[in-house]
Amino acid sequence: MDATRKANLDRAFNPRLIAVVGDKKISDYMWLKSVRDAQAKVVSVQIDENEIPGILELGFENYPSLADVPGQVDYVIVAVPRPVAPRIVADAISAGAGAAALFTSGFAETGEDIGIQLQDQLTQMTRDADFNLVGPNCMALYHSRVGIRNSADQWIGEGGDIGFMSNSGTHATGFVIRARTCGLYPLKSISMGNSISIDQGDWLEYLGDDPDVASIGMYIEGTRDGRKFFEALRDVAARKPVIIWKGGQTREGARAAASHTGHLASDMALWDAMIRQTGAIRVDTQDELMDAFKALTFMKPFTGNRMGIIAQTGGQSVLVSDAFGREGLTVPDLTTESYDILRPIVTVVGGSYKNPLDVSGSLTSIERGREMLDALAVDPNTDIIVIEASIGFISRRLERQGQGTDDLIDMFKSFQESSDKPFGVIATWNQDEAALAEFRRQVADRGIAVFPSFQDAARAIRRLREFHVTRAELAAVGERP
Amino acid sequence: MDATRKANLDRAFNPRLIAVVGDKKISDYMWLKSVRDAQAKVVSVQIDENEIPGILELGFENYPSLADVPGQVDYVIVAVPRPVAPRIVADAISAGAGAAALFTSGFAETGEDIGIQLQDQLTQMTRDADFNLVGPNCMALYHSRVGIRNSADQWIGEGGDIGFMSNSGTHATGFVIRARTCGLYPLKSISMGNSISIDQGDWLEYLGDDPDVASIGMYIEGTRDGRKFFEALRDVAARKPVIIWKGGQTREGARAAASHTGHLASDMALWDAMIRQTGAIRVDTQDELMDAFKALTFMKPFTGNRMGIIAQTGGQSVLVSDAFGREGLTVPDLTTESYDILRPIVTVVGGSYKNPLDVSGSLTSIERGREMLDALAVDPNTDIIVIEASIGFISRRLERQGQGTDDLIDMFKSFQESSDKPFGVIATWNQDEAALAEFRRQVADRGIAVFPSFQDAARAIRRLREFHVTRAELAAVGERP
Repeated sequence: MDATRKANLDRAFNPRLIAVVGDKKISDYMWLKSVRDAQAKVVSVQIDENEIPGILELGFENYPSLADVPGQVDYVIVAVPRPVAPRIVADAISAGAGAAALFTSGFAETGEDIGIQLQDQLTQMTRDADFNLVGPNCMALYHSRVGIRNSADQWIGEGGDIGFMSNSGTHATGFVIRARTCGLYPLKSISMGNSISIDQGDWLEYLGDDPDVASIGMYIEGTRDGRKFFEALRDVAARKPVIIWKGGQTREGARAAASHTGHLASDMALWDAMIRQTGAIRVDTQDELMDAFKALTFMKPFTGNRMGIIAQTGGQSVLVSDAFGREGLTVPDLTTESYDILRPIVTVVGGSYKNPLDVSGSLTSIERGREMLDALAVDPNTDIIVIEASIGFISRRLERQGQGTDDLIDMFKSFQESSDKPFGVIATWNQDEAALAEFRRQVADRGIAVFPSFQDAARAIRRLREFHVTRAELAAVGERP
Repeated sequence: MDATRKANLDRAFNPRLIAVVGDKKISDYMWLKSVRDAQAKVVSVQIDENEIPGILELGFENYPSLADVPGQVDYVIVAVPRPVAPRIVADAISAGAGAAALFTSGFAETGEDIGIQLQDQLTQMTRDADFNLVGPNCMALYHSRVGIRNSADQWIGEGGDIGFMSNSGTHATGFVIRARTCGLYPLKSISMGNSISIDQGDWLEYLGDDPDVASIGMYIEGTRDGRKFFEALRDVAARKPVIIWKGGQTREGARAAASHTGHLASDMALWDAMIRQTGAIRVDTQDELMDAFKALTFMKPFTGNRMGIIAQTGGQSVLVSDAFGREGLTVPDLTTESYDILRPIVTVVGGSYKNPLDVSGSLTSIERGREMLDALAVDPNTDIIVIEASIGFISRRLERQGQGTDDLIDMFKSFQESSDKPFGVIATWNQDEAALAEFRRQVADRGIAVFPSFQDAARAIRRLREFHVTRAELAAVGERP
């Protein structure tokens, strides 16, 4: 991407003036609402006389065309019927906008002649004008710091440092929403749609060059320029963690992807090879994406594979060991010194003070829990510490000490801060899934990696270990004379 | 198991008189409370003078020994320190109880000499007396219909038809609790513990012979008599679905299992072969166990592998196709007739009326959703129907029609009842995990299979298909002349 186009994209992401073209009551003015809280002036362009009164009622100025909008428009969101789309994009080009995001769909992804022709026309126009078109068939741009969004449901505010790019509007939007329930702060999320003017390689380079983006995730269905994407990935992944979630991995999925964004099937083995060679992280579902980001963001870097584990009961101690064992991580014996510390505090007969600890009824207070975690963390045989927080089970015991789950989470946080080893929580409870979800949200809110199950935790930790090991290896290769 | 022992177990499961030995304030009288709502008289045996007043306060009669309890004791729960356990078990034998469940732990699972000696002593005593000892190191028995429980947190009532047996008390207890959040009704759950007197093969045979048990699940860490277990499994699995969740699959897990219930490691490949040969269903986590039971219980039997799918957005249509594709299920083209029905109702440009349907904004009413499901169900190219219910997304549209999620669930139920094809719901939502969990609970409560993710749904459906296919094949073999 050349410097002018990059500067124009920066302008669109940090606009002073935004124009929304063609928003409607039937869609509950979703686009005007998505940017109404932005640190920018927002105006509407709409010629349908039935729609204008509702737009004025919301407090927006309305103009009959982009050409009539006073001032320099930086960012245009276009939600018009597809036959009108080329004319509006032409207007955005004439207006000198930094970028236009085309929500409108019905182009090459339909497989229909009319859709393909219109897409070809848009491609040619934007190429000739060297213009930044986001989409078409997309959910536009998100930038938390300035308050532009893919959807009004998304959080905005300071402190975001994750970049996300997605062929799917659902996933561009959903990533941001879900991230906040996981304690993560997204900065930019790009819904690429059919990506005819700015392709996957461009977007990756753009996020790679953004100094405020610390890590990058993507949902990707394909790219027309594989070589360019590979080179961008090699370059960016050497500098920042990149997590890749590939849609259309199977014959069934590739067929759906073709009718979603018009991308053709490509061999997953090639993607896998590319991910491995560049040191990126592969995930296969949104849950795995979130778990990988949690482990990346909240757990201190690690290359060891030796788990120190606290389970709440004997049955769980077996399952958690199996989960980590399946992912190639080990649950080693502790030192004699650690056993001497743990034996007197894991007191319930039938429990186990050996790794994994089966603390059963012995976790009777916050202080006792902290002693157990500390013993695991100082043991030289462990690299990574996790605790099962079976919340109903633990909280009954804490109640007798006048302690609550708030105190427990405080203890987790202070342990995480004081320990050199990476730390994760696995929150379990059979009784009340809604209460469990709320507990997970509270733990996540404190910047602690909290996983929904043993297997999810083990998978994320295995992947992050591979990432840190590969990164260390690639760095070592680079340092050779 | 001989007829006398079986009759004695039946008596313990359907007791008229229950005695709880050694319950204490520090454990909040957990055992007295676990059976206080049973359709049986419950008395306490306790000699500690500090404990007796609290027990009397709860309204239980207390006796100094089992021998002093008037009447025929059918079921004894023992929660005494381990050195006393053999004496209390001897008393239970003398009292002619149907069975005693020994909560006490600290036997062979500790690896300590004293624990091993005490376990040997109990083994010998119960063998000599031909006595039913449940455990030791267990959470006793659950029978919903008569109100005896592993824990007072469990549901009791009529209508249960699932049997469960578990080496882990956590999982015996947890299965029942979790089952009710999934719309499933457990009948009996057995915490086997170290299973020294009644082994895994016995329990499986017992549940297999219970006419009120329609299907069986188990969490198993091992068995001392593999041949006996295999024969019981072959016999029972030919008559009833059996779902096997094996703990201790890996070296790490087997090590934890040894210190949990004293079972030794065994090769998972052998278990796999046994599961395949007998037509049982393998699962690896509690989540998978629940999903398999949902698919087994709520979805009509099927041997086909062709999915008919409704997704809410394009991005989701790709992921759901990948998920089913990974599990070897197909997402075929529909007939021209179906396209003619669907084209005019999947109206949003950019959506797709092809399988998987990407209905985007077109699911505007309950009636419209039902039309889409009906079109998929009558199509001769589909065998199994699933719908993604992205609840926040759908409910905004339904609200405009004055329709709510209750109406949506009613529609799911009436579709399920009218369609010949098995039906499942995949409930998704990024915004509020607690609300999503509550929606899933409501759908489950109506007897509809509801899965938390595409991959979970695909895995459960693949497994149930294998089960139904194997069952048909085994039946065909049996029918050959």
